[in-house]
Amino acid sequence: MIAVLRIGHRQGRDERVTTHVGLTARNFGADRIIISDEKIACTLEKVAEKFGGPFEIVCEPDWKKVIRKWRGTVVHLTMYGEPVDDALMKIPDKGDILVVVGAGKVPGELYNLATLNVSVGNQPHSEVAALAIFLDRLTEGRWIDKKFRGELKILPNERGKTVVKNPGQKRVRKTA
Amino acid sequence: MIAVLRIGHRQGRDERVTTHVGLTARNFGADRIIISDEKIACTLEKVAEKFGGPFEIVCEPDWKKVIRKWRGTVVHLTMYGEPVDDALMKIPDKGDILVVVGAGKVPGELYNLATLNVSVGNQPHSEVAALAIFLDRLTEGRWIDKKFRGELKILPNERGKTVVKNPGQKRVRKTA
Repeated sequence: MIAVLRIGHRQGRDERVTTHVGLTARNFGADRIIISDEKIACTLEKVAEKFGGPFEIVCEPDWKKVIRKWRGTVVHLTMYGEPVDDALMKIPDKGDILVVVGAGKVPGELYNLATLNVSVGNQPHSEVAALAIFLDRLTEGRWIDKKFRGELKILPNERGKTVVKNPGQKRVRKTA
Repeated sequence: MIAVLRIGHRQGRDERVTTHVGLTARNFGADRIIISDEKIACTLEKVAEKFGGPFEIVCEPDWKKVIRKWRGTVVHLTMYGEPVDDALMKIPDKGDILVVVGAGKVPGELYNLATLNVSVGNQPHSEVAALAIFLDRLTEGRWIDKKFRGELKILPNERGKTVVKNPGQKRVRKTA
């Protein structure tokens, strides 16, 4: 089980980025996203319904409770942490992983609550980018094989859009 | 030369995500970001000053002009495109690459203007995540070796924050 916990979300200001965090978690092989914003949970549920799961969306405003109750490794993604490739070697092959991504400045205690503080480059960039790279490395790229089963499915296309309907794969929209 | 072109930016709504696109481009080895928003250009310039370049920020509202004038490969990142690993094999080893990322729905003509339409998974996720993975794959992870030289430098730390000042590496802030 891989879960992603989004903390420090500010309503309004962080809405779009938190949505990106959720969609990125889903695309790159996480099984669950834990957020504090009901509205974003609805948006993510609609995507999971339309394009498929399994992907669980949990609303929980108390992030500390989530970490305290977690039985497994807690990875905090931060530009101040140890390099991702070093950290990956410390993560047990088996067991659950909770990946924590903050918005803006995170509470100092998180650095001690986490099992590992992990950086994807020691430069300011994006928690969305850091999450994508971390999950890509963690799953060794196997997220690409994840089968989603929803109402719609997108098929790769060199020069346009191909969307098919499940089940039966009837083409619903194709544009060049 | 790797440049990133952000298109379709909507003032207000996309500010934070476009900033993330710029910071992600910088962290993962792009040499230049081209955006249409002066305010975000200023934010990115401040980061590049503080944490180092080389990284060029260009303001240009006419995205079509940028693509038309580009001498090299134009890669459009889209969930409808061909798989990233297939596409990478079609990109010449030498020559400049322009990576185009849209906000929301992009104009249909972009699919034809681009040399390659590339997907990082055929699921809705995030242009920030797609950009990070694409640049990581394109540079074969070598972005990590990029030397930034600014006023401040962050050193990896397992359990806190270590920030040093350039030149001379005087420690300016460390918190556990």
